[in-house]
Amino acid sequence: MTTIHDQLIKHLDEAHAMEHDVLRMLDGMISTTRDPEVLRELEHHRIETQEHAEQLRARLRAHGVTPSAVRQLTGIVGALAKLPLDLVRSEKAGRNARDAFATEHMEIAAYELLKRVATRAGDDETVATCDEILEQERRMAEAIADDWDRFVDLSLLEEGVTTGDAA
Amino acid sequence: MTTIHDQLIKHLDEAHAMEHDVLRMLDGMISTTRDPEVLRELEHHRIETQEHAEQLRARLRAHGVTPSAVRQLTGIVGALAKLPLDLVRSEKAGRNARDAFATEHMEIAAYELLKRVATRAGDDETVATCDEILEQERRMAEAIADDWDRFVDLSLLEEGVTTGDAA
Repeated sequence: MTTIHDQLIKHLDEAHAMEHDVLRMLDGMISTTRDPEVLRELEHHRIETQEHAEQLRARLRAHGVTPSAVRQLTGIVGALAKLPLDLVRSEKAGRNARDAFATEHMEIAAYELLKRVATRAGDDETVATCDEILEQERRMAEAIADDWDRFVDLSLLEEGVTTGDAA
Repeated sequence: MTTIHDQLIKHLDEAHAMEHDVLRMLDGMISTTRDPEVLRELEHHRIETQEHAEQLRARLRAHGVTPSAVRQLTGIVGALAKLPLDLVRSEKAGRNARDAFATEHMEIAAYELLKRVATRAGDDETVATCDEILEQERRMAEAIADDWDRFVDLSLLEEGVTTGDAA
């Protein structure tokens, strides 16, 4: 038997761990990205992600809790962060874009759920934090979705294929 | 040095392997879902997913290729499929919804990329297949996004928390 407050703390703690996994993932992507515009986008979102982790830490503090290190709870993002680096081989641009797009939606889902748990727990400040973070995650997801053509071109370039090869 | 045709085959083959990983993931979700409406949605999408795998097999056949078993190439979805089952513990409704939402967007990204590789390779049939599959993946993603409230309620119920506990 747990209370809605216990559930709120659990969701906040998991979101905090998730943002740390995302930071590691972004670092991996930044280290394999050469395109200056994509790099700028990733580095901008890395700063946002650090801020998200800090915002979640602040909400945990407000409830008198310090973040635990519940890495194993983060499911798909944790699994992604643990992928052996040799899987991140060639054709990085497309693969990074795909993984980042999925991860942004993992985060969107996590904050949609956290927001509703916070609403039911009467924690308006966490609701406001979720809305703020959701806006940034959505913007990042849209930036990726606007650029599929670029990611395909970059991938084909990495593979040594030019579009002129088309039959 | 590879050709655009090689890249097309690689993307088709990876998409085929991805759909098989998604099938395993859906089976796991179906086995942990009790809510009749969510169950109906998952089972409907399981049938769609089987059809996607068949459509991709048909496109590979059209190019004289049989699907390989490139499980390790599927990145985040492969990682998710390999997650130990004991991670899929309590609070399944919210966790399943979150993982499914991320996976749908992984698939959307994969088909947006495949579609563009197929366009550059002049394979109009694969482009049409991608558009058809994309429509179904988007519909599934929207169905999940319409239901965050239900998933939170189901999760809190699983945890023995009633919304009446709210402060």
